[in-house]
Amino acid sequence: MSERNIRVEPIDRRAVEDQEVEIVERKGIGHPDSICDGIAESVAGALAREYLERVGKVLHFNTDETQLVAGEAAPAFGGGEVVDPIYLLIVGRATKHYEGQTIPTERIALSAAREYLESELPQLVFGEDIVVDVKLGEGSGDLQDVFGEDEVHVPMANDTSFGVGHAPLSETEQIVYNAERRLNEEFAAENPALGTDVKIMGKREGDEIDVTVAAAMVDAHIDDIDDYVTTVEDVRDFVADVATEYTDRDVSVYVNTADDVESGSIYLTVTGTSAEQGDDGSVGRGNRANGLITPNRSMSMEATSGKNPVNHIGKIYNLLSTDIAENVVSNVNGIRDLRVRLLSQIGRPIDQPHVADVHVVLEDDVALEDVRGDIEAIVDDGLGNVTDITKRVIDGELETF
Amino acid sequence: MSERNIRVEPIDRRAVEDQEVEIVERKGIGHPDSICDGIAESVAGALAREYLERVGKVLHFNTDETQLVAGEAAPAFGGGEVVDPIYLLIVGRATKHYEGQTIPTERIALSAAREYLESELPQLVFGEDIVVDVKLGEGSGDLQDVFGEDEVHVPMANDTSFGVGHAPLSETEQIVYNAERRLNEEFAAENPALGTDVKIMGKREGDEIDVTVAAAMVDAHIDDIDDYVTTVEDVRDFVADVATEYTDRDVSVYVNTADDVESGSIYLTVTGTSAEQGDDGSVGRGNRANGLITPNRSMSMEATSGKNPVNHIGKIYNLLSTDIAENVVSNVNGIRDLRVRLLSQIGRPIDQPHVADVHVVLEDDVALEDVRGDIEAIVDDGLGNVTDITKRVIDGELETF
Amino acid sequence: MSERNIRVEPIDRRAVEDQEVEIVERKGIGHPDSICDGIAESVAGALAREYLERVGKVLHFNTDETQLVAGEAAPAFGGGEVVDPIYLLIVGRATKHYEGQTIPTERIALSAAREYLESELPQLVFGEDIVVDVKLGEGSGDLQDVFGEDEVHVPMANDTSFGVGHAPLSETEQIVYNAERRLNEEFAAENPALGTDVKIMGKREGDEIDVTVAAAMVDAHIDDIDDYVTTVEDVRDFVADVATEYTDRDVSVYVNTADDVESGSIYLTVTGTSAEQGDDGSVGRGNRANGLITPNRSMSMEATSGKNPVNHIGKIYNLLSTDIAENVVSNVNGIRDLRVRLLSQIGRPIDQPHVADVHVVLEDDVALEDVRGDIEAIVDDGLGNVTDITKRVIDGELETF
Amino acid sequence: MSERNIRVEPIDRRAVEDQEVEIVERKGIGHPDSICDGIAESVAGALAREYLERVGKVLHFNTDETQLVAGEAAPAFGGGEVVDPIYLLIVGRATKHYEGQTIPTERIALSAAREYLESELPQLVFGEDIVVDVKLGEGSGDLQDVFGEDEVHVPMANDTSFGVGHAPLSETEQIVYNAERRLNEEFAAENPALGTDVKIMGKREGDEIDVTVAAAMVDAHIDDIDDYVTTVEDVRDFVADVATEYTDRDVSVYVNTADDVESGSIYLTVTGTSAEQGDDGSVGRGNRANGLITPNRSMSMEATSGKNPVNHIGKIYNLLSTDIAENVVSNVNGIRDLRVRLLSQIGRPIDQPHVADVHVVLEDDVALEDVRGDIEAIVDDGLGNVTDITKRVIDGELETF
Repeated sequence: MSERNIRVEPIDRRAVEDQEVEIVERKGIGHPDSICDGIAESVAGALAREYLERVGKVLHFNTDETQLVAGEAAPAFGGGEVVDPIYLLIVGRATKHYEGQTIPTERIALSAAREYLESELPQLVFGEDIVVDVKLGEGSGDLQDVFGEDEVHVPMANDTSFGVGHAPLSETEQIVYNAERRLNEEFAAENPALGTDVKIMGKREGDEIDVTVAAAMVDAHIDDIDDYVTTVEDVRDFVADVATEYTDRDVSVYVNTADDVESGSIYLTVTGTSAEQGDDGSVGRGNRANGLITPNRSMSMEATSGKNPVNHIGKIYNLLSTDIAENVVSNVNGIRDLRVRLLSQIGRPIDQPHVADVHVVLEDDVALEDVRGDIEAIVDDGLGNVTDITKRVIDGELETF
Repeated sequence: MSERNIRVEPIDRRAVEDQEVEIVERKGIGHPDSICDGIAESVAGALAREYLERVGKVLHFNTDETQLVAGEAAPAFGGGEVVDPIYLLIVGRATKHYEGQTIPTERIALSAAREYLESELPQLVFGEDIVVDVKLGEGSGDLQDVFGEDEVHVPMANDTSFGVGHAPLSETEQIVYNAERRLNEEFAAENPALGTDVKIMGKREGDEIDVTVAAAMVDAHIDDIDDYVTTVEDVRDFVADVATEYTDRDVSVYVNTADDVESGSIYLTVTGTSAEQGDDGSVGRGNRANGLITPNRSMSMEATSGKNPVNHIGKIYNLLSTDIAENVVSNVNGIRDLRVRLLSQIGRPIDQPHVADVHVVLEDDVALEDVRGDIEAIVDDGLGNVTDITKRVIDGELETF
Repeated sequence: MSERNIRVEPIDRRAVEDQEVEIVERKGIGHPDSICDGIAESVAGALAREYLERVGKVLHFNTDETQLVAGEAAPAFGGGEVVDPIYLLIVGRATKHYEGQTIPTERIALSAAREYLESELPQLVFGEDIVVDVKLGEGSGDLQDVFGEDEVHVPMANDTSFGVGHAPLSETEQIVYNAERRLNEEFAAENPALGTDVKIMGKREGDEIDVTVAAAMVDAHIDDIDDYVTTVEDVRDFVADVATEYTDRDVSVYVNTADDVESGSIYLTVTGTSAEQGDDGSVGRGNRANGLITPNRSMSMEATSGKNPVNHIGKIYNLLSTDIAENVVSNVNGIRDLRVRLLSQIGRPIDQPHVADVHVVLEDDVALEDVRGDIEAIVDDGLGNVTDITKRVIDGELETF
Repeated sequence: MSERNIRVEPIDRRAVEDQEVEIVERKGIGHPDSICDGIAESVAGALAREYLERVGKVLHFNTDETQLVAGEAAPAFGGGEVVDPIYLLIVGRATKHYEGQTIPTERIALSAAREYLESELPQLVFGEDIVVDVKLGEGSGDLQDVFGEDEVHVPMANDTSFGVGHAPLSETEQIVYNAERRLNEEFAAENPALGTDVKIMGKREGDEIDVTVAAAMVDAHIDDIDDYVTTVEDVRDFVADVATEYTDRDVSVYVNTADDVESGSIYLTVTGTSAEQGDDGSVGRGNRANGLITPNRSMSMEATSGKNPVNHIGKIYNLLSTDIAENVVSNVNGIRDLRVRLLSQIGRPIDQPHVADVHVVLEDDVALEDVRGDIEAIVDDGLGNVTDITKRVIDGELETF
């Protein structure tokens, strides 16, 4: 057992699952804020990988400030058109000169953005429906901490920062998260009429769960208003089915409730995202690192996407605490709710947090002492392998939003 | 008593004041994120006032997406200079054409930004140290809800949204909030060497409070390294004094801990903000509507600054719930901790929330039934006068960050 | 014969071919100024064609102000890379709303720019090596003049403007023009090492012609310095060969004279254009409408590229006068040099210029009266069919730079 | 006498004053193209002066590419307002790092632009009516040529370039030039209703001179349509008076001929420039270095404004040839028309041009041999003191447009 300051205690609240009112939200991949998160993170990953390849270690960068300015579009059944393009500005800093080499940071950022958009938002024609620009300042060269091909050091904390993770997801959280993921994957694969901008709000009061879905439809695949209504209905049915996999509670699903079908005021888009018409976006305004917005739980305000995965404590601790929480729940029985908080201490290695406190709600028949040791071991192991988080981020294996 | 769905219940956790670990943060007025919040909100206020003056009611707008791209500076004792300007892009949409009138929305936005910057960040030369640009799309004309000179309607909720407020502030929260406010006002008035970018992190473990201050110094008013060290010391002493007004606990104050005075690596700036060198910013990434970041408390992810105060439920409910919480605590004795949550219901007037739930921690000698009636009355009154929030925002009387 | 005010007179100077010193320049298709000209004109053509297709006539637009901001590149034998992208801003105004239709003017502009770049500068990766942005203001709706599918009116002159054309080209002019054209077509087809940015300066003193070529080389197709030197030599030989087709005078050809091969300071690029590194560009700064810069001849300062071909007199008169000059020389024998000038008169149809004056230098054995009638007939015919110029511009049949 | 290759010959055309048709144009200080010229040149001057002050010599820079994107305005009698700001982008490159010093090139550019605008276009509110942004690439450090405080070398020509100057101005040219200058100075001082955007076209046919003035009026100083008509009339009278000082020919003056007073379609502006509404601009598209556009005379296409005055041959030769032409005409009697052309030779000092040819039209009673010696001496002296041109440009004593 290490010397790390790990505390395991009962949480001073009911499990979220047992609270009276629960609110959960997820902004889908095509939501303007998520577009920004996704691009910021893909730029960060691309920079880290290029640095490793070119100079053998990750250099200073931070690209967590993408701004999206909405366009204007004229959707129409059967296929409308974008009128004014979306404008997206990638903002940040990155090291361009290092030991005689010039690293094409802006070029890397644009390529990563393009690749991300073409892969995740294929309805958007890069450079025509969306103009992507970049302003990267010059980074300060070397990181004092090393993440290289040959050696990896645990970095020092240079800031007082905080990360928080939770597990397991409540039923409502599981529904919200998985409904969006599966709409964008399974459902969309069969139904190209569904856009990527799917926003889901879950609200549970006691045992009644309401799931409200705002789903952008892609006009090229919608023939007329009847087709639209049918597609909305299909989305509703699909989400209702998904929900039953995660709960036995009563679930009501509402899709595109702001529509006024009579007057033709419906959620029809050319590109599958509201960014085409009036909805701006930026990094860190949407989902937290676990993919959800959960006011019932402690949240960090740090934007995780786009930060440097080697030495940005906020990013690392948010991802690590989530990872630890999931590991504990997978490996230790009897836990109904668990929160992991990691607080850094300036000047000490980040595998030695000022405090790692774990708060749990246990099943009725489980005592804290039954699980304390196992939990501590998992936390200790997670901290001991903190640089794995960096590695997995660079390899694109961890989601940040 | 109205028919509003108001619930008052015990909170299912200890008062924040009684929790073992508490973390609180505030980004001062000159922090890059706060600059964006401040400009977004001043633009929103200016637009609302101009609409009222020109067409007699507030029209559709939303300006909650300012992006700041950091500049480059070369500070030096006695006075350095900005090398590359900060770039700030005001993003949003606003109604430009209404009943034959053209409202100069972009001009209004630029004027408001200029006025705000010249008033709050006087060290920044507008147009030279900072370039302010604007991209406002066209808003959709009329609001369906009316906030006019002659009549004021309670708007309908067009979204499921959520606001949360807390009172009273814990000791640590009070210290963090007031230390920043008073540094930027009292202290800076006497000590022009202190910049506006003051970031304060408070951490309480049991009865030990650590206050960590990162304070940008203005080079023109710092003669040399000794002068710098003295000023840092003065800030420390000032904050330590402020702290004693809010707590009897032990408080340790740390200022500019990342400095390395030997090597001259200190927090010296030309303009008093880190935006001049490498720190980007955007709206909604910093303080919540009550001026603090409080992971121990439930927080809304909504950016409050820049939103339309007539019909944006997230903005209104965040401000209203905070206002109600403060009113309850001012008028009802025996409350140690209180949380107000307002949840909207699509299609109903916003003074009729889906649920207004109030959770309290009471003094030991107070029973819920002793205070329930008073609390409900204050909540009911706050909801009944919801349009006052709009009015106060437009008049610039409510802070949003 | 019409009533048009056509004058044919002897020119009061020697034929350019007979002047002692002659200077001629052409900026190739990949020169930063030419890139801007090319994009401005392709955007204009695309807008005109879209207007015709969508509303049956050309509406108000003007897109003659593209600005290119150079990038930064790191060329290397065998293939280097762009470091910072080129930034290109398409500027102008165009009618976006017409009789209930919304015309996606910015989208059209971006598509046209992309198509042009991918066709003419294939080494540039659109959206990565070059960021194309657009700021099109709203045009004023209808043109008072009609160019439609069903009817075509001759527009009124709304400005005092001036166009000038010359024929035949002097030997030096022919060499300069054709050397660039054939380098970029024939030579480049066989030699991918040659970039599109070929700038040619011709200087004739008496019977000595110097042709100075600055030719950007594409690094991916140049293995090493020897390969570079060989390619430069090949360009030299090719241009020398081309020259012999147009003159019997002595021609010396110099290629990339600013190179310092010893020190490796050579004209190597990644993308074939100096826009990648340090050379900005904009519309109307390079070639005149006949593809050349000819200080020995009268020139118009009007930027031809990007202007509206229906009613912009400067554009129409520059193209028409050049067309007329070429027609005269093709059809009338005995002309050594000819200049056509067209001057508009505000408020009259443009086929009725204030004056159309033609100045000629004739072969020794030809008298003005021998050719006057033929010349006048051709001028009259050209003016009578002025709208053909518009049509050919829209169809992309006329070069503007 | 030096060894310079100076030739003096008769010109092979009539004096411009004697040609049948003459066209002359001048875009006033507030024309969008002139705004760009003015800012580009003021930025260049400021950079040169700062370099001298900071490092003792002028470093590499080039800022000849300002782009102006027109705004939108709503003028009204008594005072309207700008709706969307003008956007102006300063483009170029400049040396930012030199021998350990950082020169704040972008900051210098913005300050110079602001100062210029506030001085020359005082109706424009900087930062509100016009947003000025800047993109300066990094210059390549040292110039190989020295222009320093302590020593001044004559630079080497690194390009084949060409400059041309003329004197004396014809009557029409004098009228056009001075009418604009005196309208913007004398007349505007008494009549604040006159804007800075005054465009003058002169056309002479035989002995009839037409002067067409397009003069933007400033709405704050125009009460109503009658006031407007009166002001237009005053401009007409003023220009007619000015004209009599320069010619005995018949002069007709037309002002704002595109107005339709009946329908209220008049040339009314908020800021005195058409840049506020629809007219874009850029450098080098308007006046040549002598302040005029003169298709009857040989013109250089080089943009003079914004170029580096130390080593840009095109700029230096255009200014020097104009200066020499004026000096010759001031000091040598009997010259009716004179053209000076300077052609550089790559690799030789610029005071040793490849050829300096002077073509003259003399009074009937003057023989070339009477004046050849004096002309050659003045040309020789001008070339010998070529660096004076650089000095005067840096000191802001020479106009470039």
